[in-house]
Amino acid sequence: MNTLSTALFDVGKDRYEKYKKNIEKFITLQVGLTTFHFNRDANEYTAKLYNFHIFPRHFATVDARFLCQASSWAFLSEYDFDFNKCVRDGLPFLNMEQEKQLKSDLKSDLLFTMEDNMAISMDNEKTLQRELSRVGEWLRKNSKEKEAMTISYGLLKNDVALIYFFQKEIRQHFGNVWTNTLAQDIEVLKVSPEERQRLESENRDELDEWIVDQMLGFTKVFRLLAEAKKPLVGHNLLLDLMILYNQFHRPLPNSYTTFKQKITELFPSVYDTKFISYRFKKSLETDGKQTEALTSNVLKPMYEYFKEPSIVNPLMTYAPEVSISAADQSKIDAKLRSSYHMAGWDSYVTGYCFIKMGHYFAAFKYGPDSIKRPLSSAEHIQGVSEFKCRVNVIRASINHINLGGDDPATTRPQALVIKHRKNKKIDMSEVLELLTKYAPFDTMPMGHDAIVVAIPSYSLARNLLREFSNNRTYSVSRYHMWKENKLIKAMIWSSFLLSTGILLGTFVNYLIKD
Amino acid sequence: MNTLSTALFDVGKDRYEKYKKNIEKFITLQVGLTTFHFNRDANEYTAKLYNFHIFPRHFATVDARFLCQASSWAFLSEYDFDFNKCVRDGLPFLNMEQEKQLKSDLKSDLLFTMEDNMAISMDNEKTLQRELSRVGEWLRKNSKEKEAMTISYGLLKNDVALIYFFQKEIRQHFGNVWTNTLAQDIEVLKVSPEERQRLESENRDELDEWIVDQMLGFTKVFRLLAEAKKPLVGHNLLLDLMILYNQFHRPLPNSYTTFKQKITELFPSVYDTKFISYRFKKSLETDGKQTEALTSNVLKPMYEYFKEPSIVNPLMTYAPEVSISAADQSKIDAKLRSSYHMAGWDSYVTGYCFIKMGHYFAAFKYGPDSIKRPLSSAEHIQGVSEFKCRVNVIRASINHINLGGDDPATTRPQALVIKHRKNKKIDMSEVLELLTKYAPFDTMPMGHDAIVVAIPSYSLARNLLREFSNNRTYSVSRYHMWKENKLIKAMIWSSFLLSTGILLGTFVNYLIKD
Repeated sequence: MNTLSTALFDVGKDRYEKYKKNIEKFITLQVGLTTFHFNRDANEYTAKLYNFHIFPRHFATVDARFLCQASSWAFLSEYDFDFNKCVRDGLPFLNMEQEKQLKSDLKSDLLFTMEDNMAISMDNEKTLQRELSRVGEWLRKNSKEKEAMTISYGLLKNDVALIYFFQKEIRQHFGNVWTNTLAQDIEVLKVSPEERQRLESENRDELDEWIVDQMLGFTKVFRLLAEAKKPLVGHNLLLDLMILYNQFHRPLPNSYTTFKQKITELFPSVYDTKFISYRFKKSLETDGKQTEALTSNVLKPMYEYFKEPSIVNPLMTYAPEVSISAADQSKIDAKLRSSYHMAGWDSYVTGYCFIKMGHYFAAFKYGPDSIKRPLSSAEHIQGVSEFKCRVNVIRASINHINLGGDDPATTRPQALVIKHRKNKKIDMSEVLELLTKYAPFDTMPMGHDAIVVAIPSYSLARNLLREFSNNRTYSVSRYHMWKENKLIKAMIWSSFLLSTGILLGTFVNYLIKD
Repeated sequence: MNTLSTALFDVGKDRYEKYKKNIEKFITLQVGLTTFHFNRDANEYTAKLYNFHIFPRHFATVDARFLCQASSWAFLSEYDFDFNKCVRDGLPFLNMEQEKQLKSDLKSDLLFTMEDNMAISMDNEKTLQRELSRVGEWLRKNSKEKEAMTISYGLLKNDVALIYFFQKEIRQHFGNVWTNTLAQDIEVLKVSPEERQRLESENRDELDEWIVDQMLGFTKVFRLLAEAKKPLVGHNLLLDLMILYNQFHRPLPNSYTTFKQKITELFPSVYDTKFISYRFKKSLETDGKQTEALTSNVLKPMYEYFKEPSIVNPLMTYAPEVSISAADQSKIDAKLRSSYHMAGWDSYVTGYCFIKMGHYFAAFKYGPDSIKRPLSSAEHIQGVSEFKCRVNVIRASINHINLGGDDPATTRPQALVIKHRKNKKIDMSEVLELLTKYAPFDTMPMGHDAIVVAIPSYSLARNLLREFSNNRTYSVSRYHMWKENKLIKAMIWSSFLLSTGILLGTFVNYLIKD
């Protein structure tokens, strides 16, 4: 029962299990990825942005079903997500179970049984018959052994399933040919029956391996990332990690502990800019820099904060520049660049904030000397090393989980209710301003005239109660009881179901997180 | 277990239950509808074509989840289905349960609780705040009672949920205004507090009724069709009827008998051109007109058969013309007109064939005199009256079901296996030609060198076995046993899962049926 009351008091295991139940049938349709390369001489990171469309492709018995939710699609549509392009050109993917199934289907005779019945369209069937005749005629007419003819992939709509089946069909029909998968065409090679037998036994699995490779699609990028073992950064990325794991690796394990173990094996250096930003904020405050405080942990204002700092902090004097690579700069159109919720751009912005905060913490850590010089990328990473594997959790009784070990002890949050004294609509920005000094905290509207705030410690809650006792506009009281309420339940889940997009990479980040 | 072996021996109830299980979570994204109007003087039917995009819209607790299947979407994409347009402009819908839920949510106070939390985007929240200020300023400045200002729907992206919530917000904020839902704008009317109270009590539910009406969307078209009680025609439409019922009316009943009863209450005059075409074919044959036989029950060749008859049958001398209305003709672009699998066009083609066959059977029924004159539309319908409520079923032990009463007695089909004697790939068109005289029958490929044929009677099967005994290319034998086979299972279901589109109307028809 995902009521607000229980959600606020979730520990990591609870949250994992709730997310798991809710995402298993969904898929992400886009993944944003930005890689950053440091040039020490220029004290500058150069970014390359990637925005992947992802869409399952069917082949033989692999035919993914996935759930859609009206609100998520409406959201994507509002931000001009191109569904047509996604369905048409989206990269396929297989998790390990699907890959295994496909390989075993290809090995079994069953697949050939299936072949004619691939729901191949009438058009394609006609093309097949025509091309078979063409090959037959060519063989009869004037071809010599070792000569070749080609069938253009254009004819096959560049459909990998057709490229596969056409070759199977041609080999099946003619005993004196062999086929090869070229870059733009199928090559049909005339060979002697002996040569054919040799090719058959030597290259037996070649075509099968090719189709598996094609079907793997984005899974190959996922695996490269896992192999690279580079820092993987996202903004509030627990759900992203779970979706990535589920979609491109394996079904999510039932056990939370197992998940932590497995995800850390894949990605040992995960960073969450949402989590880090709370520490950054706190550090500024402890440092007495209230005036230059970061006022939001939402991606867009965070980026603007670092992009155009209104006040210069000496720790940031030698903060590295971050720029988009010249090649990308020209490719990225105005739309993408200004569009938050575009996975590629969001992943860039996340990495941008990560680098700036990395520098801040490194300069802080390494003391006065480090303020007077540019730092190395190793130092930047070292600066945030204590936040490694710490992933933000919203509206729970812990504010983060630790993928690399035990979660922090539960600090059962103090839930307070802030109400407008005249039952008027609450001005959120006004209230947020009043609450700034109590952050990190999570809020949840309750009707139009009240919000619930989860305050992380008892003493902070007491301070807040005291301070608000004289406030003329707002009253604050302890939150006692919540009724089971399906609307509130719906509301809580609506927020994450919007996450149809994930961004990931050397810096990872969500499509819609805030 | 939907293996081929059991499917071939399904009775109506089995088929209903299998379909039900498989479609409950899917939705159709397009519905084609063509209305036909008869002009007796011209002996001509004029057609108006409609192609509806359908997409669920979320509002409050209504937020449909639905399943997608990779292969269906790939198919739609291949035929240039516009997913972007569908998500953006698709008509919403509510079945009766959803409508009830929405109404009860609107009545309860919970909805207002929900209001601020509608996952309203930051942009929209900003617009709201700005418009509220604008109204406030206008009220203070120079407005008199009964004067009005407007807020353009353009600002609200024509989003009905926003149009609703903005009005709720404005009324909530200001005690001396009332709002009205105009065609292009929200009207904000300055009124006295007394007038406001009067309006409040008199028009209490007006806005709620408006939003329900908006959310009903295509359901209203569905209801109009049900009220009209006109003949509803489709091609192989059992699955369509079930999807329509499930999506726009109520969840499918568990009982097959109840479904038949309920669907007949909604649509008492259902016709299936696939079913009728078998009778048409038989009638031609009985009439000794082998040479002019209809060779296919697939929609496209059927339409071509009637559109350009190669041989003139005297019964067809006064068959009515069927034409697309002038207004539509100009609207329908070349793409739609040539595109089978476009719901609107398919529904037109279905109606076209229905009218031609209706005339044929009427002329046949009313004897020599009727051959010499045009017939009335009542006569056309009367011609096929015995086929009313008879809906085709493929690959089952009955070839149709009767929605209006008991299904026909089971004629357990004789399953025969046709194999290429040299284990070569079967040339389907050659085999189909050989089998023509045994139709209606259903075939199912079995590997690349064999097909299974379900022959409706024992005597026909015997004839076929005899005839093929001398065939040099193909052997025919009785089909005995089928192993449980997941690939074949997948194949069977893949055929209907492609039916993401439905067409319906005064003449109804599927997107992909053959």
